[in-house]
Amino acid sequence: MGKVICTGLGPGDPDLMSVRSDRAIRGAAHVAYFRKAGRAGQARQIVEGMLAQDVTEYPMEYPVTTELHFGSVEYKAALAEFYDAWADRLAAVAQDSDVVVLCEGDPFFYGSFMHLHSRLQGRVEVEIVPGITGMSGCWTATDQPITWGDDVLTVLMATLPEEELAKRAADSDALVFMKIGRNLPRVRRALEAAGKLDRAWLIERGTMPTQKVMKLADFDGEVPYFAIVVVHGQGRRP
Amino acid sequence: MGKVICTGLGPGDPDLMSVRSDRAIRGAAHVAYFRKAGRAGQARQIVEGMLAQDVTEYPMEYPVTTELHFGSVEYKAALAEFYDAWADRLAAVAQDSDVVVLCEGDPFFYGSFMHLHSRLQGRVEVEIVPGITGMSGCWTATDQPITWGDDVLTVLMATLPEEELAKRAADSDALVFMKIGRNLPRVRRALEAAGKLDRAWLIERGTMPTQKVMKLADFDGEVPYFAIVVVHGQGRRP
Ligand SMILES: C[S@@+](CC[C@H](N)C(=O)[O-])C[C@H]1O[C@@H](n2cnc3c(N)ncnc32)[C@H](O)[C@@H]1O
Ligand SMILES: C[S@@+](CC[C@H](N)C(=O)[O-])C[C@H]1O[C@@H](n2cnc3c(N)ncnc32)[C@H](O)[C@@H]1O
Repeated sequence: MGKVICTGLGPGDPDLMSVRSDRAIRGAAHVAYFRKAGRAGQARQIVEGMLAQDVTEYPMEYPVTTELHFGSVEYKAALAEFYDAWADRLAAVAQDSDVVVLCEGDPFFYGSFMHLHSRLQGRVEVEIVPGITGMSGCWTATDQPITWGDDVLTVLMATLPEEELAKRAADSDALVFMKIGRNLPRVRRALEAAGKLDRAWLIERGTMPTQKVMKLADFDGEVPYFAIVVVHGQGRRP
Repeated sequence: MGKVICTGLGPGDPDLMSVRSDRAIRGAAHVAYFRKAGRAGQARQIVEGMLAQDVTEYPMEYPVTTELHFGSVEYKAALAEFYDAWADRLAAVAQDSDVVVLCEGDPFFYGSFMHLHSRLQGRVEVEIVPGITGMSGCWTATDQPITWGDDVLTVLMATLPEEELAKRAADSDALVFMKIGRNLPRVRRALEAAGKLDRAWLIERGTMPTQKVMKLADFDGEVPYFAIVVVHGQGRRP
């Protein structure tokens, strides 16, 4: 009887995964990872060159969304079915042998694996290896501490309504916005309303070979899904 | 000419430090770390057994606080002097050779090294290796994801005023309280006021051999400095 081991990969640079994740991935006979249909998948790319030659791979391809609105009941049902099916499949593999699931950043921090984790409870042993979050990789890339002293840090998904982003941006010392992509204009307007646009940094693909770090105010264009906006706290410093 | 490399150690289990930190620490000729006078120091304990035989160690002992109130002008001045002196010393060592500074968790997330980092700017090259935060180690120890969907996560220092803790506890989906220690009663009252005490978990020394995980409501007693309280978000889950 094996187990399902979800290994946090860290922000992108393979050198930043934990010693435990590194060991589990190199030794794995079965490796699963999420990806969009037709894409290589970020998680799989991070471990390129690390997998055993005779590994069995399980790309878990998200249901295609072109026809369905992301927030629709139909899409939610398709996603639930997708997670149900993969929970069954991984539980079956784990009857005989360990299976390693790759997860960007830290699995329990807004990660997709959580939807398998809840479905696997009571069926098979599940182990989670935490990882360095994408946000840690991104604020390190700015070469400035994110929080000092008693600073309050708020982590916000850019998918939230603009007024809520603006209210919370005004009300916190340090800020992290994730899931940027098409929501960038909204994040920008929220920060402007909160009087913090000039302090905001945009980090694309933090710690990856194509990393970009820039002041948000200077930026104009499109950003990838792997992008984060941070505003550093300015708390007590002796 | 060497550099100052601050390596994030992760939450405590040495297996959870990054491959890069692990390599830097094992290869280091000079290793510095903060500790309270007369204590082994948490950071130094995490790397026990990893250091080279002929390593030179630089324990950076915080100024003693028994006579001075933590928030007093005098203590702040003593701390500033302490950081100034160690910035000078590390810059001097780095003239000839790399020096590795150990830092619990992620260095740029409420870490003490930040006070050296700002003082070393323009004097010597400084490299930061991010780490898994203590909070990631702690929520992983509860075996429950901290955030789902669009959940808002707020990170609070338990040293903040009680009314502020209560207000923010009421206003966020997921919560992390750090620097617990003597502030635990205040955190408990704030969570009670926000109606969230029954959902709160207390984690002592997450991922360390003496780890404890319990419901905060069931706990009565003293907690160590390395303790975190979390309230998990309950957001969208297909
Ligand atoms: C579904 S969340 C997963 C978060 C992940 N579990 C973590 O711990 O960072 C995906 C979001 O994480 C952020 N992200 C993760 N890694 C990143 C990186 N290296 N650079 C920029 N953004 C990143 C982006 O905002 C992206 O939209
Ligand atoms: C000065 S902050 C340093 C935070 C660190 N840089 C990090 O990334 O976690 C110290 C606080 O971190 C928290 N902490 C860090 N590691 C922890 C662990 N393994 N278990 C419980 N609390 C921890 C405690 O709340 C402690 O009071």
